[in-house]
Amino acid sequence: MTSTEDSTLVDSEFDRGIAIEPRGEGRYDGHLDAAWSIGAGINGGLLLAACAHALRQTFPQHPDPLSVSAYYLSAAKEGAASFATEVVRDGRTMSTGSVSLTQRDDGRPVDRVRALATFGDLASLPDDVQTTAVEPVLPAVESCVGSSLAPQDFKAKAPLLDRFDLRLDPDTVGWAMGSPSGRGVIRGWLRMADGREPDPLSLLLALDALPPVTFDLGLPGWAPTLELTAHVRAVPAPGWLKVVHATRNYAGGLLEEDAEVWDSTGRLVAQSRQLARAPRS
Amino acid sequence: MTSTEDSTLVDSEFDRGIAIEPRGEGRYDGHLDAAWSIGAGINGGLLLAACAHALRQTFPQHPDPLSVSAYYLSAAKEGAASFATEVVRDGRTMSTGSVSLTQRDDGRPVDRVRALATFGDLASLPDDVQTTAVEPVLPAVESCVGSSLAPQDFKAKAPLLDRFDLRLDPDTVGWAMGSPSGRGVIRGWLRMADGREPDPLSLLLALDALPPVTFDLGLPGWAPTLELTAHVRAVPAPGWLKVVHATRNYAGGLLEEDAEVWDSTGRLVAQSRQLARAPRS
Repeated sequence: MTSTEDSTLVDSEFDRGIAIEPRGEGRYDGHLDAAWSIGAGINGGLLLAACAHALRQTFPQHPDPLSVSAYYLSAAKEGAASFATEVVRDGRTMSTGSVSLTQRDDGRPVDRVRALATFGDLASLPDDVQTTAVEPVLPAVESCVGSSLAPQDFKAKAPLLDRFDLRLDPDTVGWAMGSPSGRGVIRGWLRMADGREPDPLSLLLALDALPPVTFDLGLPGWAPTLELTAHVRAVPAPGWLKVVHATRNYAGGLLEEDAEVWDSTGRLVAQSRQLARAPRS
Repeated sequence: MTSTEDSTLVDSEFDRGIAIEPRGEGRYDGHLDAAWSIGAGINGGLLLAACAHALRQTFPQHPDPLSVSAYYLSAAKEGAASFATEVVRDGRTMSTGSVSLTQRDDGRPVDRVRALATFGDLASLPDDVQTTAVEPVLPAVESCVGSSLAPQDFKAKAPLLDRFDLRLDPDTVGWAMGSPSGRGVIRGWLRMADGREPDPLSLLLALDALPPVTFDLGLPGWAPTLELTAHVRAVPAPGWLKVVHATRNYAGGLLEEDAEVWDSTGRLVAQSRQLARAPRS
């Protein structure tokens, strides 16, 4: 068995959310469910995972997304979605491909996401870990703030929240009480609400699951992602994930946002950086 | 005049290095000069800038690369190179495209780089700067270590070094004397050796100009880039750039490497993250 078996066989919200039907010539049909929507569109992490899921069908010997770079072109909506994949390089230890996610709008195809990605086999990588980043220290899960406590008017626009069991570090939720820290950091515990354990594909979702880090800068509103590159570095152990989002460069109406995902064994299993448009004030 | 006028009109090593000839239908011919080689191939930053230079011909109203994600497929060599560009989305404030860099090897085309990029107009962005990252403190240029002091056998394999005036912080060059710090950080002052001032395109080169950060981990040898995403956030002021490279996650035979470029006014003008293959020991 490879490190990521075909998740479409598993009955979980996430696996149903990224399920696809082959249409031949590297094309696949999918359906974006409103359950994954947040604000005016479908969550970017779900789209990232769906794109990687389509592309990896092409590389059976390289099942794991090592690096995925997605350019978000327009807000994806609930409904049918088409994935067109292209093999760029089919290598011995890694393969690279391109995937385009489109939806029909008034009958014509509209680009939602274009991505490049390199796949490999995480289980085949050497065991050395010399990570210098330090695992974040979080209060116990029970001492953290569940997203179920979010205001009703916020939750009404964010069905996405119900897909997760998210417990935010109380030290980074001042913004929810009108006192953002201004540091630009949000961190917490994350797992799927239905208990599905993490794997390399679901880490792509985990990287974009927390509230925008701009909330902690005192900037409400959405920060649409222009580009997001994810690196998946190891097969995650079962259990809770620790996720940290931070921004270092909010300027010129744009911001960069970095995310780290640590698994229950304390390994840094995924990292991402995105360029987003600053919320309109 | 837009914020980045056509650099091919300028006679500098860099501008000659990324010069292209249109061949119609979004295709361009270029020449990769051995002056930009390092180890077994042409420097990845030069390739990134060359790809962006080709793609931006397509977007005259959006001259600046805001985000470029390059997937490196094989080592580029001295010689002729072809760029094939594709418009993905031609928007009002930003445009996105794809570019493929190929070279002929034994008569058949071989992929070197495939990239996605979003272009915009940096000069049109708002002036707000709320960057929380802290500008690195470096000793005075005269107190730093010039790359001209590198060992002769190293320099013989690195014609790239002569393109830059690079002065490394003495605190991060212990590796050159056999005493790497183990922190995984290298920083220094950078400008082009021929005095060409920085602009958004040359920042793409600056992001990949320093020695591999693995040197500071005590790991000599090359760390070939698999993927590199650059964000250019502002038109840089003339003068010296400060460049910082750091890694946080060296594990499983791969490492992530982050770079920041600060201009002479103390603004964080560019950031990048790359996934690289760890040096073979």
